[in-house]
Amino acid sequence: MPELDTQYLCDLAAQLRVDSIRAAAAAGSGHPTSSMSAAELMAVLFARHLVYDFDEPGNPLNDHLIFSKGHASPLLYSLFKAAGAITDEELLTFRKRGSRLEGHPTPRLPWVDVATGSLGQGLPVGVGVALAGRLERLPYRVWVLCGDSELAEGSMWEAAEHAGVEGLDRLTAIVDVNRLGQRGPTRHGWDTGAYARRFGAFGWHTVEIDGHDPVEIDFALAEAVRTRRRPTVILARTHKGRGVKEVDNREGRHGKPLKNPDAAVEELGGRRELTVRVRAPEESRSPRRFDGGPLKMPEYEVGATVATRSAYGDALVALGQARGEVVALDGEVADSTKAEKFAETFPDRFVECYIAEQQMVAAAMGLQTRGWMPFAATFAAFLTRAHDFVRMAGISGSDIRLVGSHAGVAIGEDGPSQMGLEDLAMMRSAYGSTVLYPCDANQTAALVAEMASCEGVTYLRTTRGETPVIYGAGESFPVGGSRVLRRSPEDRATVVAAGVTVHEALAAADTLAEQGIAVGVIDLYSVKPVDVAALREAAETTGNLITVEDHRPEGGLGDAVLEAVCELGPRVVKLAVRNLPGSATPAEQLADAGIDREAIVRAVKRLL
Amino acid sequence: MPELDTQYLCDLAAQLRVDSIRAAAAAGSGHPTSSMSAAELMAVLFARHLVYDFDEPGNPLNDHLIFSKGHASPLLYSLFKAAGAITDEELLTFRKRGSRLEGHPTPRLPWVDVATGSLGQGLPVGVGVALAGRLERLPYRVWVLCGDSELAEGSMWEAAEHAGVEGLDRLTAIVDVNRLGQRGPTRHGWDTGAYARRFGAFGWHTVEIDGHDPVEIDFALAEAVRTRRRPTVILARTHKGRGVKEVDNREGRHGKPLKNPDAAVEELGGRRELTVRVRAPEESRSPRRFDGGPLKMPEYEVGATVATRSAYGDALVALGQARGEVVALDGEVADSTKAEKFAETFPDRFVECYIAEQQMVAAAMGLQTRGWMPFAATFAAFLTRAHDFVRMAGISGSDIRLVGSHAGVAIGEDGPSQMGLEDLAMMRSAYGSTVLYPCDANQTAALVAEMASCEGVTYLRTTRGETPVIYGAGESFPVGGSRVLRRSPEDRATVVAAGVTVHEALAAADTLAEQGIAVGVIDLYSVKPVDVAALREAAETTGNLITVEDHRPEGGLGDAVLEAVCELGPRVVKLAVRNLPGSATPAEQLADAGIDREAIVRAVKRLL
Repeated sequence: MPELDTQYLCDLAAQLRVDSIRAAAAAGSGHPTSSMSAAELMAVLFARHLVYDFDEPGNPLNDHLIFSKGHASPLLYSLFKAAGAITDEELLTFRKRGSRLEGHPTPRLPWVDVATGSLGQGLPVGVGVALAGRLERLPYRVWVLCGDSELAEGSMWEAAEHAGVEGLDRLTAIVDVNRLGQRGPTRHGWDTGAYARRFGAFGWHTVEIDGHDPVEIDFALAEAVRTRRRPTVILARTHKGRGVKEVDNREGRHGKPLKNPDAAVEELGGRRELTVRVRAPEESRSPRRFDGGPLKMPEYEVGATVATRSAYGDALVALGQARGEVVALDGEVADSTKAEKFAETFPDRFVECYIAEQQMVAAAMGLQTRGWMPFAATFAAFLTRAHDFVRMAGISGSDIRLVGSHAGVAIGEDGPSQMGLEDLAMMRSAYGSTVLYPCDANQTAALVAEMASCEGVTYLRTTRGETPVIYGAGESFPVGGSRVLRRSPEDRATVVAAGVTVHEALAAADTLAEQGIAVGVIDLYSVKPVDVAALREAAETTGNLITVEDHRPEGGLGDAVLEAVCELGPRVVKLAVRNLPGSATPAEQLADAGIDREAIVRAVKRLL
Repeated sequence: MPELDTQYLCDLAAQLRVDSIRAAAAAGSGHPTSSMSAAELMAVLFARHLVYDFDEPGNPLNDHLIFSKGHASPLLYSLFKAAGAITDEELLTFRKRGSRLEGHPTPRLPWVDVATGSLGQGLPVGVGVALAGRLERLPYRVWVLCGDSELAEGSMWEAAEHAGVEGLDRLTAIVDVNRLGQRGPTRHGWDTGAYARRFGAFGWHTVEIDGHDPVEIDFALAEAVRTRRRPTVILARTHKGRGVKEVDNREGRHGKPLKNPDAAVEELGGRRELTVRVRAPEESRSPRRFDGGPLKMPEYEVGATVATRSAYGDALVALGQARGEVVALDGEVADSTKAEKFAETFPDRFVECYIAEQQMVAAAMGLQTRGWMPFAATFAAFLTRAHDFVRMAGISGSDIRLVGSHAGVAIGEDGPSQMGLEDLAMMRSAYGSTVLYPCDANQTAALVAEMASCEGVTYLRTTRGETPVIYGAGESFPVGGSRVLRRSPEDRATVVAAGVTVHEALAAADTLAEQGIAVGVIDLYSVKPVDVAALREAAETTGNLITVEDHRPEGGLGDAVLEAVCELGPRVVKLAVRNLPGSATPAEQLADAGIDREAIVRAVKRLL
């Protein structure tokens, strides 16, 4: 470690402030004051404790630095400049169209693991990265710069609990306690003791310091490195806008460039061209990985009845046997999602997240930054808890696989609180997502195998009850495809279904056939992307489509179909769950919601 | 208070267990073991501390009891039976179609404030009810029965923080620490000290007891009543399935009826017909309410440019002046959402929730149970944090108003993490919701006034940047309506827009008119419910619709239009945000997303 040169560290901090101010001034927007408060914290980290090779961001021994307070992006980019990773010219492209220096950091930059900017996410993701490090048996550390305001987010305490109980001692949270949120003072101001009591209760080692004193910072960071069996939180009292009178510790200066940036730069001693030599990893080591083998997916007999959630459990074990990078996470319902089969077979590669869905998705995001292939499961309904994380995972381009069980009214008696009826809308609206919804066990197994090669956020929707196996083992179900289950030249309409409603659609088609009305049936197992060609063909041949889904009418299967065919203008009837369900049997629920076979028959007759 | 008769309390607890077992047995499903663990806790509460008039659920002096562990519904219904509110016959309708005794409690029962069953929600809502009590200056208490598993949810710690800092001493959390979650043991087992340290750090008074000892329970409840300036948490060690050997403290018995219910009833001493006399409020007092006055909404000059978020701020103050029951909540961004105007004018009726969106929505749910009219605001993007609460508010039929500012790519430089691009999909998919999206300041004011008479979850989407005022002050914009801004018999297509895209659509129509192409323009400010008649008329006259929205293509305005017209089969082109935005100016963002005036012109030409 280089010698402790406090003058250099102070100068470096001043430069980081200057560059943050200049970047925001050039952009005409941004968060310089939130950057200025953490300048010493990050200067000391970069100069003395961070281990990172900026020329080789993929080095497995690199530390990970996450700006949970993503709005301090000017500071991050100024650090990248000081470390020689970007030029001053690029720094001044901050927030301009086409620049990779966005308002909040994203992985468009090779040194950024995940997009931040929605507060309360960086620490939970950092927990995931630290879990990866433990799994890999690598010594890299995870440093997370947090704001004090974001400690109000429950997700931060899910992270605190997970890290504290697991004793993730390579994780360090550095909290920039600058006392001021966006609108005004935080609840606890500079009372770092209030935060220390909370983190301490959750099992963390806590250090309270003056966040502008390089020596105190250095000691605290060294203490974090030294601390065993517990994560460390450094609670650093700082001034927002530190060093420039116009903004230092003043309210109402959040998220704005300084009024007089030139004078501010002057006040800070002018521009500097210091560089910081971040220590690169000294050794070369490979992460522990687990062996794979040939892929042998489970097989189910046609005509048997099997719940797709059970098939998910079986298929995940099979995938895990084939590919050592598969890891599974669950929200304390693995006996319901059937992830328990994986947990029993591969206990090392299973992360029990308890009832903390935000932390579960964040942990998945963290694990995938290190090349793991996470599958995270809970009830479809409860994935809504993690919506903001799913949204940010889409922005990050994080390769995570999510599985929602107990979808729809088909769960029966448990009632609406347990029914995933909004999950397709939520998952489809995530950027770059893939949404799959199988109707039988063999199809489920095939789609789990498909998920292995999907990028971005991939979602699999499973069903609680048993459904008949209608496809043979080993049949192919590519993402973006569909299956035509009934078709004849006499078809007067086409029913498009997925999951449980496929079986209702088939029964309805049989009933209608007996009455002399031929209708086609499409199994749209890939809800996003949809099989545009197949849907357009149906729209052009029969001209009448009936969509039927165990989901709210908004944002689900029916809308996916309409999206594909709306320029052609077929007539479309959308059957979906429009009522407020109570408790009832699955069959009663489907009937009450108007998505069962009889409802489909009625809809076809009405349309024709 | 009646004398402490421990034999009676034990017998009552046994009866609650027996009835829970019987109800689940009759249903063939349900959670008897999770009910049995809390039988003494609730027996003592009902017999000795709860103040409630079951004949008058609307009595303002009634205490509030929330089963945050909603799956213990058999216990709740058994308590209602013991209190004489329901019959044994009704108890045995548990979980049957049409019964109001659903798998998880909902407000279909007059003694239930909000639906629970999604864990981690009851305590946050209870905080809201306790805030209402303080506002009303009434002495009612809020009792929340929590599970130990749900303490992993971050939302519980948002609630702990809010209640602790506010010192809500009339709030008591009773945690049934039965050690077993659904899948297996919890993180902390019976270590109530682990929970006590956490709650203590958040400022709560903590009591650890044996949850099956009526005397200890009685002391703890009395201590909670006595404790001033702090909320109390009672951490009660219990056995899941207590009292019946088959299930007592055993894993794998979650959420299932007992195998041998008759033997279990026998083991518990058989059926009893005890009643519990819950003490009704003794005095009669009215809640403090605030005066109202005539409604005088703000007015803006046509041609001025005003951000709709600013108009929201002005309008909320005006509504607050007219109606004393209006309260506002904000997620520490009131300077951005413009709720700060209300906060300054009516500090007593403003709740700063800091960056804790789940707690914000939950507090709104709690406040509305007592007749307040909450408006809760944050960035549209960050409302995704509270998705599960929005979902449950829909199921509860909670009358809450949510406001999401900074919608869409139109925010400009801040980048995708701050852009609400999924909010319309999320809000539309909530049961019974209303979704409004104004394009100018006068329309915003009118819609805020409309929101006062909306039921269920109502959502207003506002824009960061200034938009031209195109409507006169005082014009009417009913929910479910729309405005035809351009129409002629020569129209060859109709552009449907809302919010910022209305202005783009008008500009596009002008450009097209210059080129001899007449198109209509509809301002679809009511995104749910939509103006089906106006859209169908457009579909039938021009036959060509172009929808344009600053939102993802899934679940937003375009889908709302398709829903209205899909049976007619017009040709529809849906313009929406399909790219991953970075940082750029608002105009650049609209162009890059393909939702600006030029994109509309291109789409019209392509369609025709």
